[in-house]
Amino acid sequence: MEQPLTESSGQDVPDPAPRAATIHDVAARAGVSIATVSKALNNGGRMTPETRARVLAAARELSFRPNALARGLHSKRSFAVGLLTDDVYGRFALPVMAGVSEGLIDHGVSVFLCTVEDDPALAQSHLDVMLEKQVDGIVVAGKRVDRLVPVDLAGLTVPVVHVMSEGAPDRVSFRPDEAQGAELAIRHLLAGGRCRVADVTGPVRFRVAIERAEAWAGVLHETGLDQPGGGALFGAWSEAWGHAAVAQLWAQQDRPDAVFCGNDQIARGVIDALRERGVGVPHDVAVVGFDNWEIVAKETRPPLSSVDMNLRELGRQAGLTLLALINGKDVQPGIRALPCTLRVRASSGGPA
Amino acid sequence: MEQPLTESSGQDVPDPAPRAATIHDVAARAGVSIATVSKALNNGGRMTPETRARVLAAARELSFRPNALARGLHSKRSFAVGLLTDDVYGRFALPVMAGVSEGLIDHGVSVFLCTVEDDPALAQSHLDVMLEKQVDGIVVAGKRVDRLVPVDLAGLTVPVVHVMSEGAPDRVSFRPDEAQGAELAIRHLLAGGRCRVADVTGPVRFRVAIERAEAWAGVLHETGLDQPGGGALFGAWSEAWGHAAVAQLWAQQDRPDAVFCGNDQIARGVIDALRERGVGVPHDVAVVGFDNWEIVAKETRPPLSSVDMNLRELGRQAGLTLLALINGKDVQPGIRALPCTLRVRASSGGPA
Repeated sequence: MEQPLTESSGQDVPDPAPRAATIHDVAARAGVSIATVSKALNNGGRMTPETRARVLAAARELSFRPNALARGLHSKRSFAVGLLTDDVYGRFALPVMAGVSEGLIDHGVSVFLCTVEDDPALAQSHLDVMLEKQVDGIVVAGKRVDRLVPVDLAGLTVPVVHVMSEGAPDRVSFRPDEAQGAELAIRHLLAGGRCRVADVTGPVRFRVAIERAEAWAGVLHETGLDQPGGGALFGAWSEAWGHAAVAQLWAQQDRPDAVFCGNDQIARGVIDALRERGVGVPHDVAVVGFDNWEIVAKETRPPLSSVDMNLRELGRQAGLTLLALINGKDVQPGIRALPCTLRVRASSGGPA
Repeated sequence: MEQPLTESSGQDVPDPAPRAATIHDVAARAGVSIATVSKALNNGGRMTPETRARVLAAARELSFRPNALARGLHSKRSFAVGLLTDDVYGRFALPVMAGVSEGLIDHGVSVFLCTVEDDPALAQSHLDVMLEKQVDGIVVAGKRVDRLVPVDLAGLTVPVVHVMSEGAPDRVSFRPDEAQGAELAIRHLLAGGRCRVADVTGPVRFRVAIERAEAWAGVLHETGLDQPGGGALFGAWSEAWGHAAVAQLWAQQDRPDAVFCGNDQIARGVIDALRERGVGVPHDVAVVGFDNWEIVAKETRPPLSSVDMNLRELGRQAGLTLLALINGKDVQPGIRALPCTLRVRASSGGPA
């Protein structure tokens, strides 16, 4: 996924100047290997912040630029990509943007931010300006994998990559592997000795709610466990629904010893409702959320274990894929589902 | 604040083509006044979404572009501005970005997003690329009015406007009027019959915590009221601090009948702590937060009244000011404090 500098070099294009600094010069000045320079300039690899800073400083002092940028300075191409998003809260879009920017900045490619909201006319005029600016490509970052961002992207002459939004079949779309993420959470709860894991999730009209619920049901079935509540409980992406779902589940005889929640806000409602009933979390009931939205997950009492969709990495790979398309590389269209990770906190028995 | 199209027209520059559509053509096609076209293209004024969409559609069909863009297409200038932010959560930066983008899009100016985080080397390389792209100007959107974004902006040859971040004295900096916002909240509580209003706020090292606390103390002094808690209670910007502050205040004899909180997370902690003590909100104690961060304010039980810093408008005005600077207009440097508004919800007696 990390690209060597040569990836974006154009052999058909002359260097910006005969005496332009090379990657060798940068390596020598920074006192590191060429590989380390490449990694540092690509924001990849493992190194100390000091090393990375030293390499970037050396590159700056020598006015060294990866060839992609050098070519940009000598061509009509703008080496800018547009990022369209309809996520006004930025919960999903901003980590994606940061990843795209991180993946592209050292290739000399900058990112136009365009916030679309739900105004198609405004969205279209944003897109018009982006195209007039001759952006090399467009990343469409949505807030729902099953929704189009409200703008007509058909017939664009520049490459388009989607993140967390539905793209045409001939496009590349990056999204989290929802099923794998949900399975991570359920297996973590089972490994902790829980055997009655309920699923409290969002509206049934959201594809991710279905996908996470199916993964939950699949693991329970595979391990021969019942579905507390008699199936996934679909509701709203809200704390209020978390409260209501607990009332519903605790009105029954066979109560859960764990609750897998469709997002962190539902999980927070569940945790608050359990505490108000005198049910101990995680002692009596373990709770896991989804999104690892730290500003919520860290503030719940106790702090919330949650599935992380790794949105930043999603954005980074989308950016690098867009760059490959821009550079005329052959890229297989279709959906790329990237793995989620699980952040274990006290709500499921992690460190208090 | 809304700019007529002529604001960005360059008389010294020829039209893109002799037969280019004019604002009159757009008005005729859309069946509206020229003023309405101007407002629609500037995202200003009051009109139905349908009218705005009709005007934008007419402008598109006629390939009408405001002169700023026409000039951009015929000059070396990129008509792009860079937006640097160190707010990785985007709570403050994203509304500001949306406002900047909204203010500039119909002047044909697009916005580069650059997420800086706290890596000065990466920040510098973002800035380098922006300058190589010949951005016309830079908006620096911080998350603290008393902090610099970690990048050296001295000696830049392009205009710079700051939002929610400290700028050099020769720059224009936009920020919310913290004192006015706090006063709004306190006077609202007093108007509701409260007479013992406590202040639970963030760390004393944050200038906004001081400014909000001083405004709180000022109104109480002016109205001859005591300071419950013996003064502002400074802590952390967290729910946990809200819980701790309630424990502290309720350990005393003279308890508050209202709590003004430094942000919505503290307010949420205060409301939860009061409920867990059986203290009714708003009946026994009214609570007001700060930020109007809806994703928190709407989920508290009851929903939270909160001061809104109008970040989007802050961004919009910053963008338009940057455009004025880019166009060589004379702009008075210094800090522009824009008024806050109060969103009243159930926690202070608003509709349940």
